Amino acid sequence: MKTALSALARRTAAPSISWLMATTLARPKLISLAAGFTDNASLPVREARDSMNDLLRSPQTGQPALQYGSTAGEPKLRAWTASHLQKLDGISAPKNYSADRVLITNGSQQLLYMTAEALCDAGDIVIVEDPTYFVFLGIVQSHGLRARGVRMTADGIDLAHLERVLESLKRRGELPRLKLLYLVTYFQNPTGITTGFAKKVAALKLLKKYERAAGHPIYLLEDAAYRELRFTGDDVKSALSVRGFADRVIYAGTYSKPFASGLRVGFGILPEPVLTAVTRIKGNHDFGTANLLQQTLARAIATGRYEKHLGALRRRYAGKAAVMRAALQKHFPPAVKWDESGGGLYFWARLPRSVATGVKSKVFRAALAAEVLYVPGAMCYADDATRRKPDNEMRLSYGNASEANIREGIKRLGAVLWKNIQPG
Amino acid sequence: MKTALSALARRTAAPSISWLMATTLARPKLISLAAGFTDNASLPVREARDSMNDLLRSPQTGQPALQYGSTAGEPKLRAWTASHLQKLDGISAPKNYSADRVLITNGSQQLLYMTAEALCDAGDIVIVEDPTYFVFLGIVQSHGLRARGVRMTADGIDLAHLERVLESLKRRGELPRLKLLYLVTYFQNPTGITTGFAKKVAALKLLKKYERAAGHPIYLLEDAAYRELRFTGDDVKSALSVRGFADRVIYAGTYSKPFASGLRVGFGILPEPVLTAVTRIKGNHDFGTANLLQQTLARAIATGRYEKHLGALRRRYAGKAAVMRAALQKHFPPAVKWDESGGGLYFWARLPRSVATGVKSKVFRAALAAEVLYVPGAMCYADDATRRKPDNEMRLSYGNASEANIREGIKRLGAVLWKNIQPG
Repeated sequence: MKTALSALARRTAAPSISWLMATTLARPKLISLAAGFTDNASLPVREARDSMNDLLRSPQTGQPALQYGSTAGEPKLRAWTASHLQKLDGISAPKNYSADRVLITNGSQQLLYMTAEALCDAGDIVIVEDPTYFVFLGIVQSHGLRARGVRMTADGIDLAHLERVLESLKRRGELPRLKLLYLVTYFQNPTGITTGFAKKVAALKLLKKYERAAGHPIYLLEDAAYRELRFTGDDVKSALSVRGFADRVIYAGTYSKPFASGLRVGFGILPEPVLTAVTRIKGNHDFGTANLLQQTLARAIATGRYEKHLGALRRRYAGKAAVMRAALQKHFPPAVKWDESGGGLYFWARLPRSVATGVKSKVFRAALAAEVLYVPGAMCYADDATRRKPDNEMRLSYGNASEANIREGIKRLGAVLWKNIQPG
Repeated sequence: MKTALSALARRTAAPSISWLMATTLARPKLISLAAGFTDNASLPVREARDSMNDLLRSPQTGQPALQYGSTAGEPKLRAWTASHLQKLDGISAPKNYSADRVLITNGSQQLLYMTAEALCDAGDIVIVEDPTYFVFLGIVQSHGLRARGVRMTADGIDLAHLERVLESLKRRGELPRLKLLYLVTYFQNPTGITTGFAKKVAALKLLKKYERAAGHPIYLLEDAAYRELRFTGDDVKSALSVRGFADRVIYAGTYSKPFASGLRVGFGILPEPVLTAVTRIKGNHDFGTANLLQQTLARAIATGRYEKHLGALRRRYAGKAAVMRAALQKHFPPAVKWDESGGGLYFWARLPRSVATGVKSKVFRAALAAEVLYVPGAMCYADDATRRKPDNEMRLSYGNASEANIREGIKRLGAVLWKNIQPG
């Protein structure tokens, strides 16, 4: 007898992250530099407790927090989200930052999922960065979408390469299947790269140019999950602020990374008709994100606890990033390259091309034998038959590991690399 | 230019519930007997506060609650869920009730959504009760599924009708498209009917008989959302307890109704390969339900607060049901029929066939003019071209309205009905 599973279920692979998590759990001594988990010691236990007690102190404020809310989300949180982004972007015209365009979701992950559902049929095409956030690639695979990768430069995607990809899709009559460009624009997962504002403008203009041949809008899905985790330099304006393009930008943000990942509250700012479609889909998913989480967060924001915590968190990650940088400098062979990112949770280490880092490679197995885990770079590349997947990189996270474990983990990994990299 | 929306998005209609909610919000004086919201005054503000403070009192227990968890859910909550159901079902062999088979979800709604995703392609067929839970019909529509309705009797679906539907699908070669039978088995939304255990056994056997012609398993999706809201009579064993059929039963439950709807924690117990497929899909949706909610609930359960609250909630709903029953007896014309359910949140009123209750009917408009809202019965029937949709029923909820509003609402509705129903 055959399985009754749907085409979607048959396509949906075990996520890479599950394998990494299972590996971590099975080896209690393992130092994981793989997890995208946030820093345990800095989780806002007191801030969350105080905010919840504010709410649950009386039936007047407690009952609404424990009741169903609306599908789009808690009005106060939507309003604050909109005005906060408007302030970050330094925009006075509030139109693109209307609270009506904000949808609260279960982490930004749910927004990415529903956006794919709302825009893409099996066989449709999305353009992603090379490399990109690997859980998004899981969504792409599950929905039977085709991905095209665009190379990155120090300030975001390579525009000339993006144009060549668009041209080749046009030539082959495939533009009608292209629905969106997915960019992780701040301290990108996995490379740490931040996309410059000029790149966002240019990318939007380029997409627009190909819309006639596509026959429909081509959206920019801007994933800003790490935007608030900046510890040096200035913020970059979002694509929402690009004049004349607000109806083409879907902005995904989250409060999980800057506040508490156990809260799982994210959000999107969406243009019509995507907003209506995604909100209806959200109604079918779950009616709306848990009211208690949203109101706790709204309370933490209103009392200033959120901003205060965020400041502390930034200092903490800056410290951990410095520890990892120093360890990399001390322990890694000079043939391995990495860049400073000034925010986020990751270093992206590039080994010589001849040295593989995948799960079956010598380096990965030796690292595991030395009880240290990283994310193999190849996991972060889309399946795109037009290019070979690079297999010589690793994502190293300082998010969850303690400073001592960061030092020790990089030391062990360095020893593995010295053994496996031939002196140039 | 065309829209870029997917086929799914183009199919996804505005949910009926949104229209009802918008109507309610636009009329502050309206008495809504439509909302499936739970009772405000009995929301467990103190129990939730105490449980959260237990957790967030110290970093040792507070940090894990604010960190990411696993996709399948908090181990303690999964284990308790499994053993609680095993106890309810009075089963000693624990195999079907293993914690490994439990998946924690964002309300049981998310489980229904993901089950549809995991099993059904566009064009596939699901069999539902006539009438059924209308939000499930939204999922059916969104995924492009075809629904067949089966009539109900006082103790669940009409088995003879179910067999005729299966036969007709077989005759037309459509059984390979049939994936599941969806039953709301306890105090059904909207009718209040509870499915007898013998019916579950017979339905499972009947489905099995047609599997050969289908070429794949046909699942029973048992939605037990209202199981814990019983206030008279004995519990009925679930389909999980039917010997030899555990690999065909997907059981959906929730802690939103018995504890707090603002917590949005539900669960499923699933057989392979559906469990693996749905867990992977959940990973793509959101990685896992917010840890803070799961741990708060686990804490409320461990301390006995959950059970104590549930006892109080049952007494409260029993009281509100009695108020509605008395008002129905006093104010409704004798030509309108309804049944006792002994649990759940609803009365299902059946008017003479000649009297329509839909949103464009005289009755509905007169009720709205009198500032009282109900759910028109037709909203609860699937689109099934093989039968006419009944249009002479109404769902009346005593969940959210106060006792005074229940009395006044039924009185107003009664006055409308006396005017619109010709004496027989």
